[in-house]
Amino acid sequence: MKRITLVMNCPDQKGIIAAVTNFIHDTNGNIVYIDQYVDRVNSIFFMRVECELKEDNQSVEDFKLNFKKSVGNKYNLKTDIYLNNALPRMALFVSKYDHCLYDILGRHQSGELKIEIPFILSNHRDLKGIAERFNIPFYYVSVTKETKKAAEQEQIALLQKHKIDFIVLARYMQIISPELIQHYPNKIINIHHSFLPAFPGAKPYHSAYERGVKIIGATSHYVTEELDAGPIIEQNTTHVSHLNSIDDFIAKGRDLERIVLSKALQLHIARKVMVYQNKTVVFS
Amino acid sequence: MKRITLVMNCPDQKGIIAAVTNFIHDTNGNIVYIDQYVDRVNSIFFMRVECELKEDNQSVEDFKLNFKKSVGNKYNLKTDIYLNNALPRMALFVSKYDHCLYDILGRHQSGELKIEIPFILSNHRDLKGIAERFNIPFYYVSVTKETKKAAEQEQIALLQKHKIDFIVLARYMQIISPELIQHYPNKIINIHHSFLPAFPGAKPYHSAYERGVKIIGATSHYVTEELDAGPIIEQNTTHVSHLNSIDDFIAKGRDLERIVLSKALQLHIARKVMVYQNKTVVFS
Amino acid sequence: MKRITLVMNCPDQKGIIAAVTNFIHDTNGNIVYIDQYVDRVNSIFFMRVECELKEDNQSVEDFKLNFKKSVGNKYNLKTDIYLNNALPRMALFVSKYDHCLYDILGRHQSGELKIEIPFILSNHRDLKGIAERFNIPFYYVSVTKETKKAAEQEQIALLQKHKIDFIVLARYMQIISPELIQHYPNKIINIHHSFLPAFPGAKPYHSAYERGVKIIGATSHYVTEELDAGPIIEQNTTHVSHLNSIDDFIAKGRDLERIVLSKALQLHIARKVMVYQNKTVVFS
Amino acid sequence: MKRITLVMNCPDQKGIIAAVTNFIHDTNGNIVYIDQYVDRVNSIFFMRVECELKEDNQSVEDFKLNFKKSVGNKYNLKTDIYLNNALPRMALFVSKYDHCLYDILGRHQSGELKIEIPFILSNHRDLKGIAERFNIPFYYVSVTKETKKAAEQEQIALLQKHKIDFIVLARYMQIISPELIQHYPNKIINIHHSFLPAFPGAKPYHSAYERGVKIIGATSHYVTEELDAGPIIEQNTTHVSHLNSIDDFIAKGRDLERIVLSKALQLHIARKVMVYQNKTVVFS
Repeated sequence: MKRITLVMNCPDQKGIIAAVTNFIHDTNGNIVYIDQYVDRVNSIFFMRVECELKEDNQSVEDFKLNFKKSVGNKYNLKTDIYLNNALPRMALFVSKYDHCLYDILGRHQSGELKIEIPFILSNHRDLKGIAERFNIPFYYVSVTKETKKAAEQEQIALLQKHKIDFIVLARYMQIISPELIQHYPNKIINIHHSFLPAFPGAKPYHSAYERGVKIIGATSHYVTEELDAGPIIEQNTTHVSHLNSIDDFIAKGRDLERIVLSKALQLHIARKVMVYQNKTVVFS
Repeated sequence: MKRITLVMNCPDQKGIIAAVTNFIHDTNGNIVYIDQYVDRVNSIFFMRVECELKEDNQSVEDFKLNFKKSVGNKYNLKTDIYLNNALPRMALFVSKYDHCLYDILGRHQSGELKIEIPFILSNHRDLKGIAERFNIPFYYVSVTKETKKAAEQEQIALLQKHKIDFIVLARYMQIISPELIQHYPNKIINIHHSFLPAFPGAKPYHSAYERGVKIIGATSHYVTEELDAGPIIEQNTTHVSHLNSIDDFIAKGRDLERIVLSKALQLHIARKVMVYQNKTVVFS
Repeated sequence: MKRITLVMNCPDQKGIIAAVTNFIHDTNGNIVYIDQYVDRVNSIFFMRVECELKEDNQSVEDFKLNFKKSVGNKYNLKTDIYLNNALPRMALFVSKYDHCLYDILGRHQSGELKIEIPFILSNHRDLKGIAERFNIPFYYVSVTKETKKAAEQEQIALLQKHKIDFIVLARYMQIISPELIQHYPNKIINIHHSFLPAFPGAKPYHSAYERGVKIIGATSHYVTEELDAGPIIEQNTTHVSHLNSIDDFIAKGRDLERIVLSKALQLHIARKVMVYQNKTVVFS
Repeated sequence: MKRITLVMNCPDQKGIIAAVTNFIHDTNGNIVYIDQYVDRVNSIFFMRVECELKEDNQSVEDFKLNFKKSVGNKYNLKTDIYLNNALPRMALFVSKYDHCLYDILGRHQSGELKIEIPFILSNHRDLKGIAERFNIPFYYVSVTKETKKAAEQEQIALLQKHKIDFIVLARYMQIISPELIQHYPNKIINIHHSFLPAFPGAKPYHSAYERGVKIIGATSHYVTEELDAGPIIEQNTTHVSHLNSIDDFIAKGRDLERIVLSKALQLHIARKVMVYQNKTVVFS
């Protein structure tokens, strides 16, 4: 028995759910979870299905082909099909802050995040020791004005060599180039330290302090070419007051960032996030 | 075109989803929303389906009968089928507190709660004026030790006469008798002013103050024979501190109670709450 | 015995607290509550003191004069002194939305808001019935491009005639003119339906939906000449998902707006909000 | 210049604030922060004062003695006086769970927790490696029915030898004996994985799951002889649904536990928590 997850969307039409469930039933599959949503404004249908297949009678590749032939083409479905026990491979990009890195490695070690982490990459050497402690290869790729282009090529080579599925920017303090984004569309997850769209760009805690807000937040989103404007996966907020200094904002923010980023990771890994029109559908 | 909602559960088995979706498809229905959950510990399958039926070719009664014959019996499904534009009829029981009453009537008036309110019933006369202001019949049914039995019969008669579907206890300060509960199993919604199971019974804010908690809460649940122990529909909490007096707890609690009760109502009215083993499945 | 509240600020200096507490002690006053804060970045000292004075031996006017002479001048204190049992007089400006209006009137009636409401003013006639139901004078002052200047003068005349202390814009959909703001600096409280500074201006729920945020919020702030940019008093947020339509955003927002605005009102009425440099110090 | 913190309480009386502020002023001290609260039900006065003393003209010991003579005795004040730059010494008790341990050590390393951690003590050897990684002595003290008494004596000896000021039970799975509690009254901080008083005792996540609650929580409290019934310092909650398994409850709980315990630690370390009548006053 193997378990697979189908994630699909198409223009909304009658009969899609029956067609998909029938196909699975007819190939001796058993649906164990189904989640579905229709965006009525744009008439788009979304569905995520987990099902069990009998090991012996078909390969996943056959299933994919047959599904495409029988259902996919008819309904113009865009479908991704994943084998549940194949762990996605995640690259971790960091700079100098260690709180998100520690949090992710801790959750990984405890089995909370079902992924492989082939490497950690940084534009600084500060966090090398942490990578070593957790026995994960660490690549130092310096990024300056002059080396930017070469650095990017080095990053892409590393990502391809290690067959990386998606990238997490765990407080990586460099702007990602359009070329790298094109290699990983909706597959680069960033954590921004404000409740976007408020306070985009650098130093959001300073801006929040300056403005005198009573709540601060954190936002995890997919990286797109427009800075801090990609599809939002998860957000959370916490209260602050005049008693809190900028340092307090930053400390409270660290707790938010950890929780928001790890939640976004869990959703992405479980294939529960679907992107369209710069927004996300997030199944629960 | 008419829209119906099917709410069902049964022992978990293979092929149920395909069977249900096929039946709907084969009767020219169109599924517009599907929500499903399997309790793996107890092997129970739950599903809620909204679908559109063509007006002309069948009555809802026919649909129900055929569904039962074709699918229901085979899978041992317990199914409730509702016509979406038939407004459920809700009786409001109150005593002296008016904040939940005002809130519900306001949301009803603004169209947020899609129900009919045939009457308000109280064991006190205090809130009669509010009922009149909103043009809703008000029944005063006094409840004392001596009149308890007769009062209950009067209540049941009123509920039946007005064809009430479910009851909301909007801070009604009397214990509901087993007989009345048996008439409305999982159809009497109460708001309790604590984060149950902490502080059941009377005066929870006083108990919370006494214990020195840093959060207070409110809980909406279905009424069962065991006091404050029925299936929980919705809960929420808010922070308190040593600065807050019991009166402050009560004032903060009023805001919680309003929001928790109205949320529970919305879920119940949308047929999104399913009860089993004294717990609820709440579809989103 | 009468109780007064002193609210003061000055450049931070040594010995202020001792000087103030001594003065009160020496005039036979008894401090019942003291709250204090120093903005170390800007070296500004803030203090709020509640104290009891013996009824017979002095008038509040004498106290003010003596305080100014003995302490105020020496430390360059800006001080406001209020008699606690003198209810502040609040004008309510509304347009067509009634949820904040109902909420404020309900809290006023139940004694939660210790104010007088001499009148409700609107640029529409829609909510007149509610004003009548609560026996509060209602003034209809139409605002169009042509009548804007005259309308403003009429508003100011009404505010002065009724000796209004502060104004609440309970979803009043007109921009307040600089002249009116100058009459009531830091005394016009607005509720904005987003977590400012995100989504200023009109239709924030539509913008939030468009951007695909996962939290929405509400902000209560003092009105300044720059739109939606005044000092923030209180904010709160709630989660939304792709399942929520714009109408759901608006409905969830109504609950937030009520709670955020009423909280801001309570803080303002208790003289717990101090403004400086477009930010607020909010004592708890 | 040195900075000290005074934490005091006494029966509520007139003139205390003036007396304390005068004393500090007269000894050339400068008050930098004052926080005060009166429990009117029980007529108890609480105050926390931070002030700066000139280095040269007096020792803290002299200050304490003079304060006691001049103010303390007159008002029957119970006062604790701390030198702000003297780091409190905290012992960490753990068993097998590592998430709170990692969190505390991470915050300690980053400078967020201003304490010394002379040792980690455990009744299991599992977490020894973490202690070593952070260069903190680790003591393994086995606790069985037979060794319980001896283990306790060994613990007390270690605590005294290392001059421990307070103890944190970071998911230490043993009941603390009355004798140890008497050595550290209101100085043993526990994290309990439920929103107490709901679900005291062992396995609260299982109980919460069983009951079908829609929120789970965590509570940090001082340990008293009655299990899970000591004064509450900090609590927080998060939402759960029928979709969450017990394992999900536990995972969500880990995030709550970390944040609630670290917040309680910060408050305790800053001397902002005062205990009376099994409740806490927590200054902000």
